[in-house]
Amino acid sequence: MSWLRNLSKFSSTIKPSQRPNKTDPFFLLPSLTFLSKFSSNPIKEKPSVKPDDYSGLEATKAHEKPRVVVLGSGWAGCRLMKGLDPEIYDIVCVSPRNHMVFTPLLASTCVGTLEFRSVAEPIGRIQPAISREPGSYFFLANCTSIDAHKHMVHCETVTDGEQTIKPWKFSISYDKLVIALGSHPATFGIQGVNEHAIFLREVHHAQEIRRKLLLNLMLSDVPGIPEEEKKRLLHCVVVGGGPTGVEFSGELSDFIMKDVHQRYTHVKDYIRVTLIEANEILSSFDDRLRLYATNQLTKSGVRLVRGIVKDVKAQKIILNDGTEVPYGLLVWSTGVGPSPIIQSLDLPKAPGGRIGVDEWLRVPSVKDVFSIGDCSGFVESTGRPTLPALAQVAERQGKYLANMLNKIGKAGAGHANTAKEIELGDPFVYKHLGSMATIGRYKALVDLRQSKEAKGVAMAGFLSFFIWRSAYITRVISWRNRFYVFINWITTLVFGRDISRL
Amino acid sequence: MSWLRNLSKFSSTIKPSQRPNKTDPFFLLPSLTFLSKFSSNPIKEKPSVKPDDYSGLEATKAHEKPRVVVLGSGWAGCRLMKGLDPEIYDIVCVSPRNHMVFTPLLASTCVGTLEFRSVAEPIGRIQPAISREPGSYFFLANCTSIDAHKHMVHCETVTDGEQTIKPWKFSISYDKLVIALGSHPATFGIQGVNEHAIFLREVHHAQEIRRKLLLNLMLSDVPGIPEEEKKRLLHCVVVGGGPTGVEFSGELSDFIMKDVHQRYTHVKDYIRVTLIEANEILSSFDDRLRLYATNQLTKSGVRLVRGIVKDVKAQKIILNDGTEVPYGLLVWSTGVGPSPIIQSLDLPKAPGGRIGVDEWLRVPSVKDVFSIGDCSGFVESTGRPTLPALAQVAERQGKYLANMLNKIGKAGAGHANTAKEIELGDPFVYKHLGSMATIGRYKALVDLRQSKEAKGVAMAGFLSFFIWRSAYITRVISWRNRFYVFINWITTLVFGRDISRL
Repeated sequence: MSWLRNLSKFSSTIKPSQRPNKTDPFFLLPSLTFLSKFSSNPIKEKPSVKPDDYSGLEATKAHEKPRVVVLGSGWAGCRLMKGLDPEIYDIVCVSPRNHMVFTPLLASTCVGTLEFRSVAEPIGRIQPAISREPGSYFFLANCTSIDAHKHMVHCETVTDGEQTIKPWKFSISYDKLVIALGSHPATFGIQGVNEHAIFLREVHHAQEIRRKLLLNLMLSDVPGIPEEEKKRLLHCVVVGGGPTGVEFSGELSDFIMKDVHQRYTHVKDYIRVTLIEANEILSSFDDRLRLYATNQLTKSGVRLVRGIVKDVKAQKIILNDGTEVPYGLLVWSTGVGPSPIIQSLDLPKAPGGRIGVDEWLRVPSVKDVFSIGDCSGFVESTGRPTLPALAQVAERQGKYLANMLNKIGKAGAGHANTAKEIELGDPFVYKHLGSMATIGRYKALVDLRQSKEAKGVAMAGFLSFFIWRSAYITRVISWRNRFYVFINWITTLVFGRDISRL
Repeated sequence: MSWLRNLSKFSSTIKPSQRPNKTDPFFLLPSLTFLSKFSSNPIKEKPSVKPDDYSGLEATKAHEKPRVVVLGSGWAGCRLMKGLDPEIYDIVCVSPRNHMVFTPLLASTCVGTLEFRSVAEPIGRIQPAISREPGSYFFLANCTSIDAHKHMVHCETVTDGEQTIKPWKFSISYDKLVIALGSHPATFGIQGVNEHAIFLREVHHAQEIRRKLLLNLMLSDVPGIPEEEKKRLLHCVVVGGGPTGVEFSGELSDFIMKDVHQRYTHVKDYIRVTLIEANEILSSFDDRLRLYATNQLTKSGVRLVRGIVKDVKAQKIILNDGTEVPYGLLVWSTGVGPSPIIQSLDLPKAPGGRIGVDEWLRVPSVKDVFSIGDCSGFVESTGRPTLPALAQVAERQGKYLANMLNKIGKAGAGHANTAKEIELGDPFVYKHLGSMATIGRYKALVDLRQSKEAKGVAMAGFLSFFIWRSAYITRVISWRNRFYVFINWITTLVFGRDISRL
């Protein structure tokens, strides 16, 4: 800071008469001499880290607020942070992205129905203490390992492929640790998926899909492109018939029928959408709804193909029976599995490789560690089934754990290793509120049954679509984003989708 | 198309009884057999181009509409296309981006005051014929050379670094050619500018600046980062004190004072903005306005430094006098010069390397070729001065040329080599309407004088800011974007800027 102070000192002590020329906008010319201070301490020779200065977050003292470290910024982690009381805890979040993605609306951003920013919520807006409280932080970093014995997590900064900045390693001591690292797209070991397919889980995935779709639309219009190549470029293949795959197919066919037909008239007859699924589409939904969805998608021009992908090449996929399917855009959404970091952690596991938790979402055998969301599951001894990897589950767990941690903190057991005999309250119970999915053309499915076998309301059509939109707009967290989503929907209705390729 | 027709035939002829299972959403299972058609003609062995099929756009026939080919999609090219009458001409645009950038508002998008999409206008919205008329096209491509003798341009598709798609070469015959390829940022041969500095001319530049700024803000908050490194990361250096550099510095200091102070409280005292200029800032403005701008910027914490950059390294710049200035973000806006493609064209040149034009914006010595915007200038024989590289000039030239071409077309001289003795009307005359620039904190400069020497209105302050915003919102081309810019400004006022790093 010395050079900054130097400058302000300089500019406040300079007398008007000393200014070289009053009409010269650069009367701060002499400040150049201050700039040369930089050269006496060149950045290139990196100053050694002074551990006494500011290196890592050390264990909190008894008189300080206890520190909750949250790994991850998805539905589980963000709902937890929102619910934590910053009067009781300092909150530290470690995640490679500084926002939460409102995943159910992500498919809509790929074709321009919604803007990217409307479905991203900065963490500082979800829990303002993160940016205001002196002991609360957000770190743009990945957790590399956890030392549960020492109550520490080790992290490494994310630098975005920036070659000039090396990742910086640091450690954080925690009083309570919440692992909410989510899951990883399942590729079933199929070659080429990671290289050639695009997932649909982050905003940058949606951006990539959009850029590629618009690029292919424009490339296919170029004179001299052979017919076969044109067909390939405009063949959009979606692998996986779960809600994400179906919603994306629906949005895509909507985009094709309304916007491509109007704005890419030369190539409109070449573009096609194929949805490949090994079993049934929307397998968690009511049979009647499934049939409805199938008919609607087919009517919209989506081809439904039952098949198993064996191999993915740069411009075609190969199915189990040897069929080759050329594609221009390949979106992969065949469910999720545990991510490498979760697999590597030396913690109790639940069936399926998730981190094991008890009924209160605590990781057994270690102290002060909790896990929520897609990355966690009940350990076998609880006799409970693994919950589905849904936003709904993650959100409920985050809320539950926030209340429990607040309760623990209020009871004076917030600090590490102070867990006394505190009444934790009721164990976590998940009640399924139903499933929803859009299928394009202002139609949606709403299945409010508790489980696949239970009875209950299951409906499809425009009313469902209306319910779907209402349900989501009230769940988009901030007022700012509610407002933007609303404005986006209105604009799309009035002006059509935006097709600029940024 | 055979496989697509096959499918629809299949799905329409299939009898309900043939469907394997009515509740099975994949009753289209047999369509797999159709998919195998792909394998009989694998895409990998690229079919050879059939020149009889669809290769390039050949010369128009006398009974067809004449074709205007527009190279570029900036202010000049887009204003021209907007004005061209699609009843008279087929319009073909060749550009590496499918939208026009509303450049005066670009600086605002870097810090989240405006969304990126609000300042980008798809060409199909500027001239709807491009996407609707059978003979009008937009090609996402670069022009590689012009054969004025044969009335042809040669192009190569843009593939976005996509390794799987090779650039596709094609040619277009024109009846009239308008070269509106813009300019290139001037780097004065300084080493490292292209590698390490970011320009501010395209939406992707603004996106890059935003990502880097937010990355540096978050990285500097990481525990253990040495003080010097923190200062470096948060030192934003702007080189060039023209309107772009000044507006960006103003937006940045606004962002720092309002948003960083609230949302990055841990690091708020480290962030600084330095504006480096070799001469005077805003040299085209009135002296009084310049002094006002200088005072306002200094008040907002922008340090103005007079200096000449000698060398740019990855984390520091070196000035002429040897001073080293470490930076985390470097934005370069020192004016523009002719781009390599303009330099390579074998056409008459104007002083400064621009394409030479006569008073009617025609390129002398070749037929049916015109040039407008930053890439063109009057040939010496006209005795006219080179016009400044301003949006205002480009826009006026585009409008003028559209009217002239429409007139030529109506007179039956639209086709190549048919230029008869047509009354072209008045030559192009540029009347400067004044300059405007924001300097942050709801302040702007408005200089309505015709030239630097002339007398006229020159004002600064909030009223100017209001005029500035009104002037721009009415010039943002489509109603959609006017609406979005308005909504963005309101949202920023009410909720602050968005800080999610997408």
